[in-house]
Amino acid sequence: MKPVRVGLVGLGTVGAGVFQTLRDNHDEILRRVGCDIVVTMACRRDLAEARAIVGEQLPLTTDPHEVIASPDVDVVVELIGGVDAARELVLAAIAAGKHVVTANKALLAVHGNEIFAAAQERGVMVAFEAAVAGGIPIIKALRESLAANRIEWIAGIINGTTNFILSQMRDKAVSFDEALAEAQALGYAEADPSFDIQGTDAAHKAAIMSAIAFGIPVQFDKAYVEGIEQLSGVDIRYAEQMGYRIKLLGLVRRRGTEGVELRVHPTLVPARRLIANVEGVMNAVMVRGDVVGTTLYYGEGAGASPTASAVIADLVDVARTARGSPLARVPHLAFQPEALRDEVVLPMEQAWTGYYLRLLVLDQAGVLARVATILAESGISVGSLLQREAREVGGEGSRRTDLIILTHEAREGAMNEALALLQALPAVLAPIVRIRKEELV
Amino acid sequence: MKPVRVGLVGLGTVGAGVFQTLRDNHDEILRRVGCDIVVTMACRRDLAEARAIVGEQLPLTTDPHEVIASPDVDVVVELIGGVDAARELVLAAIAAGKHVVTANKALLAVHGNEIFAAAQERGVMVAFEAAVAGGIPIIKALRESLAANRIEWIAGIINGTTNFILSQMRDKAVSFDEALAEAQALGYAEADPSFDIQGTDAAHKAAIMSAIAFGIPVQFDKAYVEGIEQLSGVDIRYAEQMGYRIKLLGLVRRRGTEGVELRVHPTLVPARRLIANVEGVMNAVMVRGDVVGTTLYYGEGAGASPTASAVIADLVDVARTARGSPLARVPHLAFQPEALRDEVVLPMEQAWTGYYLRLLVLDQAGVLARVATILAESGISVGSLLQREAREVGGEGSRRTDLIILTHEAREGAMNEALALLQALPAVLAPIVRIRKEELV
Repeated sequence: MKPVRVGLVGLGTVGAGVFQTLRDNHDEILRRVGCDIVVTMACRRDLAEARAIVGEQLPLTTDPHEVIASPDVDVVVELIGGVDAARELVLAAIAAGKHVVTANKALLAVHGNEIFAAAQERGVMVAFEAAVAGGIPIIKALRESLAANRIEWIAGIINGTTNFILSQMRDKAVSFDEALAEAQALGYAEADPSFDIQGTDAAHKAAIMSAIAFGIPVQFDKAYVEGIEQLSGVDIRYAEQMGYRIKLLGLVRRRGTEGVELRVHPTLVPARRLIANVEGVMNAVMVRGDVVGTTLYYGEGAGASPTASAVIADLVDVARTARGSPLARVPHLAFQPEALRDEVVLPMEQAWTGYYLRLLVLDQAGVLARVATILAESGISVGSLLQREAREVGGEGSRRTDLIILTHEAREGAMNEALALLQALPAVLAPIVRIRKEELV
Repeated sequence: MKPVRVGLVGLGTVGAGVFQTLRDNHDEILRRVGCDIVVTMACRRDLAEARAIVGEQLPLTTDPHEVIASPDVDVVVELIGGVDAARELVLAAIAAGKHVVTANKALLAVHGNEIFAAAQERGVMVAFEAAVAGGIPIIKALRESLAANRIEWIAGIINGTTNFILSQMRDKAVSFDEALAEAQALGYAEADPSFDIQGTDAAHKAAIMSAIAFGIPVQFDKAYVEGIEQLSGVDIRYAEQMGYRIKLLGLVRRRGTEGVELRVHPTLVPARRLIANVEGVMNAVMVRGDVVGTTLYYGEGAGASPTASAVIADLVDVARTARGSPLARVPHLAFQPEALRDEVVLPMEQAWTGYYLRLLVLDQAGVLARVATILAESGISVGSLLQREAREVGGEGSRRTDLIILTHEAREGAMNEALALLQALPAVLAPIVRIRKEELV
């Protein structure tokens, strides 16, 4: 078979990893693919630094469009990041009839529908295994390995920075700020960490997974997104006492014919679930299919090497299937007609989930009864309850206590209403903490 | 695209699951694959029972060769099990130019090389995702998703029966016999459970994975295989005290240019590893690649539905890639020339692993020193040690104690020699228990 010729646009750590792996593991890759995968051109602003990575032979350029236009390039690997420039580049590559491999989740979350439609029209592949959960082959699992299944839900730890912070807060009983500072010192968090800690990055990936799993357009703008900045060590410890761990999960769930839930938020998960034991910067994605049952995929979610592994897996797919096969004509998302409705992603008020509530209340007769009555009247069923021994606060003899409530699944809208009523009780002394809870069975 | 036409040979629970899933999830599968996958013929000895599963329309036969010969069948799905009849059937299907999908690990472990060579020669695919770890897409991960990697090792819980028994022994402190009886009552173990509990089934799967991972012939006959029948609850509890769990692992490991280790045996695994927390009949496979790092794949390893999910994933692959693509010409195992050497699978004496040793010894001065000296002189380094308080046994005032030793990695041959010397010590009162240990980092 003729070699697949690759143009690398972006030659930072990931691009260098792709180049070096294709060189170092050449024989291994060749025997698996049956044809050569060869980098024929690369693009980076600083040519001297690029030359230091790729040696003397490889044609280099500072202009991405030179890579796209090159007759020696079959596949353009986009690794420049960002959204606007990457969009223009990817669309130009597609228009030139080149297959595209990208690791850019922000790009696909925001412009995926336009890009997939253009690729579809032009008959080329856009492959993006590296865009979700780094080295974990979750995209291929969803598209191919689980093709027999109606996907019921996906729950993923898909941001390593936040998982590292949450692991530190639990293991070492440090505050969010201390854990964040350590993540920054170790290079796991950016100087401006907002993209990670606010949940945006996880929401990009969850939106992409929901599109693949359910055959719906990418709808990042409709995701409910809540980060971990507000999370307190107190709640991590209470959760632990009740048999749960708190993880930032990306959740997508098919709700019959009603629509799809798409949400990212801190989530209590039973401590005995495998995913609750995923620590540090590692990622894991659980997928529930109606035929296969529950499966889980675990690995490194970021970093040059794992990302390069996923980029090359995509190049292997292009090499094995796109050339001379009908695969390039299979729709990227394979929209189902009914899924094209705008309302397919449900507003958060219509989501169903369990809840952890922490109320700081006056230790008075009747408080618990009033709280329980409000929840019952809102149709919310209490699963378990923990009341700390009351403590003296201030000098006035007023005793207060933490009341922790775990509920069964309820509609978010009903919970919002119940919370407003609870918050208005005179015996409730501070803003109520609400964290969602998923049993993942 | 033209539909892919499937002939089912064997219509038991898995075959029925494949038929029903292709019917029930037709639209979902169609949108993912881009073409129809249609069962056009099925074969079962009892036609009335077959008719009850497939309805009135589908052509049925009692003769597998009628399915193979049918011009309406592109892919033969072999689900009859066993080895000899299945071999004859699969080779006949290949000779007739039909693609083959099989869930039959025993067949591939014993006759895989012959079958893959025949398929290669004839230009057809033999797909077998369901043969290893049921619904977990481990074959596709190894062949495609991790194609950029040199695989360093694989460690898998790939037999649900034995994992259920070990989970019960640990959780409920029951004996092996009690746990086995419960597994049989629940239908997780056969009336004759020897195939599972002796490790044979896991060795079939490990041999297949080693072939895919390293590009070597399937060499089941060279696997070292040790089951769980001899395992005692005492050792499960000592292991726990030292931070380990005992799992039956299938292990394959590349040892540089020396060769490949291929072994199945009870194994101590650090309790904090994700795989140590895989309980009951669930399966999980860890894969260490030089680029991606450590990944793990988890799910149901057996049962009609998960197996059907994997069989259909293979049909999807055939539909998407085998027709009109060069993929069917990619070697199934892609032998590397140097891997064809007969000695590629190392004898167990040359394997390297850690060890758990339990010695029942007389509580006398100097015993520990003699044990430590023998190990040191054999080049075996002790990692940690646990000595139970000595207890009076018999009426003669002789006190005896359990001495538990965890060693760092050592050569199995060196350990065999050390064990012979230790066993010969007068102070060692019973056969020494030796269980292997892997840190899996």
